[in-house]
Amino acid sequence: MPREQRSRPWLRLCPLKAGRARGGAAMLRARWVLPLAAGAGLGAALARREPRERGDAAEGLLARLPVLPAVAAASLPAPPGAGRTELSKYGLPGLAQLRSRESYVLCYDPRSRSALWVIEQLNRDTLSGASDRAACDFQEDDSVHEYHRATNADYRGSGFDRGHLAAAANHRWSQKAMKDTFYLSNIAPQNPHLNQNAWNNLEKYCRSLAKHNRNVYVCTGPLFLPRMEADGKMYVKYQVIGKNNVAVPTHFFKVLILEKESGEIELRSYVMPNSPVDDKIPLERFLVPIESIERASGLLFVPNILRRTSNLKAITAGKH
Amino acid sequence: MPREQRSRPWLRLCPLKAGRARGGAAMLRARWVLPLAAGAGLGAALARREPRERGDAAEGLLARLPVLPAVAAASLPAPPGAGRTELSKYGLPGLAQLRSRESYVLCYDPRSRSALWVIEQLNRDTLSGASDRAACDFQEDDSVHEYHRATNADYRGSGFDRGHLAAAANHRWSQKAMKDTFYLSNIAPQNPHLNQNAWNNLEKYCRSLAKHNRNVYVCTGPLFLPRMEADGKMYVKYQVIGKNNVAVPTHFFKVLILEKESGEIELRSYVMPNSPVDDKIPLERFLVPIESIERASGLLFVPNILRRTSNLKAITAGKH
Repeated sequence: MPREQRSRPWLRLCPLKAGRARGGAAMLRARWVLPLAAGAGLGAALARREPRERGDAAEGLLARLPVLPAVAAASLPAPPGAGRTELSKYGLPGLAQLRSRESYVLCYDPRSRSALWVIEQLNRDTLSGASDRAACDFQEDDSVHEYHRATNADYRGSGFDRGHLAAAANHRWSQKAMKDTFYLSNIAPQNPHLNQNAWNNLEKYCRSLAKHNRNVYVCTGPLFLPRMEADGKMYVKYQVIGKNNVAVPTHFFKVLILEKESGEIELRSYVMPNSPVDDKIPLERFLVPIESIERASGLLFVPNILRRTSNLKAITAGKH
Repeated sequence: MPREQRSRPWLRLCPLKAGRARGGAAMLRARWVLPLAAGAGLGAALARREPRERGDAAEGLLARLPVLPAVAAASLPAPPGAGRTELSKYGLPGLAQLRSRESYVLCYDPRSRSALWVIEQLNRDTLSGASDRAACDFQEDDSVHEYHRATNADYRGSGFDRGHLAAAANHRWSQKAMKDTFYLSNIAPQNPHLNQNAWNNLEKYCRSLAKHNRNVYVCTGPLFLPRMEADGKMYVKYQVIGKNNVAVPTHFFKVLILEKESGEIELRSYVMPNSPVDDKIPLERFLVPIESIERASGLLFVPNILRRTSNLKAITAGKH
């Protein structure tokens, strides 16, 4: 690797050695970059690696669920049999990265350096308590491989807040539960105005619902929505921040599953853009059909709920 | 929902009822869209749903591996215990969607409507046979929920080829194995020139390596790489095609794990841009450090391999 490339944290994309004269001009004109740690040649990278047992960090709910952590699955011996069964001989390169913590269950997306979704359970018990937010600091999630982990430095000077997915103020019941919401895996880059106004109001509204229902399950996550550009084609475009390229969502969703005292289940699903939102707009204006979130996020909520109850009422704009 | 919105397959983003006069102007100026099936109100959507057991389609390798299909995990009863353990009461909205087929193991990405990665095993036995490509048709993967599935219509008129991740010609040994490569979950939108020239040459090269090694494991997948724009910030931008918004990768990777007759393991990792590539450029110019692919894709290869062998030799540009 030429010296000038070795000293840069971002490596211009391949072909590494192709000059313009060799026909690689079209590719070299492009400014796509592949990440590479500064000064880390391949040999160094191999030597530095330790086989991290990321599954060790699984605590709480997951320890009691028969869900196989990704790393454990990848290190299983190949099954017996003919050649065809040996596909996983050298491991499967990535599976769902679940984290179960005091206050939430989270599915991590190593490509975007944030969560795909986070679920919390709110009720009267979880809202009260003496936990102190001032005693919490945003912290790297070292259960995530360093290649795929956001750091506080990634956010510094980015213009984005470290926006909680599972909200800190939802977990006054336990200092550890509140502290766990400060892992950067539960955080996404969020427009400061949104974070401090309309989104904060939506979080407060979730807590007020928790006072008048048996339970409120809140699932929060990022969206990366397409839009049409001048050429008439649809594109997904989002900023990435910091050395680790933390993805800035275009929108956020919250899906609320209300368990009423009557036993009825009510579903409310919200989307807000990751930009300043006038907090005088009533929250119900941000209700969207759950199907829209399911299609855009790649997730499914309703089939799971219908497996538990036929008593489901969905609330969406114009429906109440 | 207003009639004019009901008739459109794409729903302008929320707030659904906010007029410009109500302060939603900034949001309404944006042309972000949330997907919604044409004519499908929420009530209709709920009524139409059947609880699909997508796990049923798991065959082959996975049936023999203790990996829990996502749907099965989501439908487990909540674990016993206090309120804190009830987080999964209404299911987990999304986990890794593995598919094990005759010719490959694949991890599906429901958000991009394609695979995160596909692994195949090539050797002398898999390359020979009488399988006929003309007897294979591209087919929807109906093991994937219809909200997250690519269709042939999505590709029609898009200007992109249906590019195989696991290549059809790698699986002459079995008609079923070849047919399985035509599921649209193993396909991504690919520039036609790339598909038919340089990428095809890379696939042929993998097969030639399979003749001179004990086994070649090939892992293929899409990349969505950031690049710097005029404002000095980094952005990921990619097109999406068809009614289902199938994501067009900016690049593709292939990671080759060569199992030599000597027992030595050799790793070769390639990236090509999803654009025309002059097929006179030698393939080795597309070698990149494995670390770059691991960082950009959110996947890990080397830790898995190092768990099986200390006899790993990595090949990258300028290293051989």
